[in-house]
Amino acid sequence: MIKVSVMYPNTPDARFDFEYYRNRHMPLVKARLGDACKSCGIDKGLAGDNPGAPATYIAIGHVLGESIEALEAAYAPHADEIMGDITNFTNITPIAQVSEVLL
Amino acid sequence: MIKVSVMYPNTPDARFDFEYYRNRHMPLVKARLGDACKSCGIDKGLAGDNPGAPATYIAIGHVLGESIEALEAAYAPHADEIMGDITNFTNITPIAQVSEVLL
Repeated sequence: MIKVSVMYPNTPDARFDFEYYRNRHMPLVKARLGDACKSCGIDKGLAGDNPGAPATYIAIGHVLGESIEALEAAYAPHADEIMGDITNFTNITPIAQVSEVLL
Repeated sequence: MIKVSVMYPNTPDARFDFEYYRNRHMPLVKARLGDACKSCGIDKGLAGDNPGAPATYIAIGHVLGESIEALEAAYAPHADEIMGDITNFTNITPIAQVSEVLL
């Protein structure tokens, strides 16, 4: 299984609307990816390494699929719409990575 | 649900033994945390934002539990043993964050 993680760095002036992200952005992503998206998830950053330290990422979104190729093929036609929706919930430029789920 | 994510930055001289991490380190963590660990996971970084770009993290380990307090209480007595095991599979200093699993 492949996981695409979209990580939103926690900056001092970060704006992030979790209500929009959870109830509008993620459902949009899921709808556009269709069957290529096997599941998705949202982590809300609470704390960092040490007590009181801020989380490195204010939010991390995950999309799971069977292969990079299947996810890319489903995403490409909707990339502009999905990327364009990001400013509706945050002023952060996210970092993405593709991982293999080993466990 | 609470997720502790331990992220290993992908540096040019990074050494990371996935066999040890999966078959020895994670089982050690799971055994020491006991019932406080509801599940755990490993992501192996494959690629970054753009085709051919390296993943930000070579590996990300996840431990899920019901609360920060329960995970901390289970972890504290074994912190030295668990942290001391890290050099057995990598030369990277990881970054950890605690998140609330929203979805």
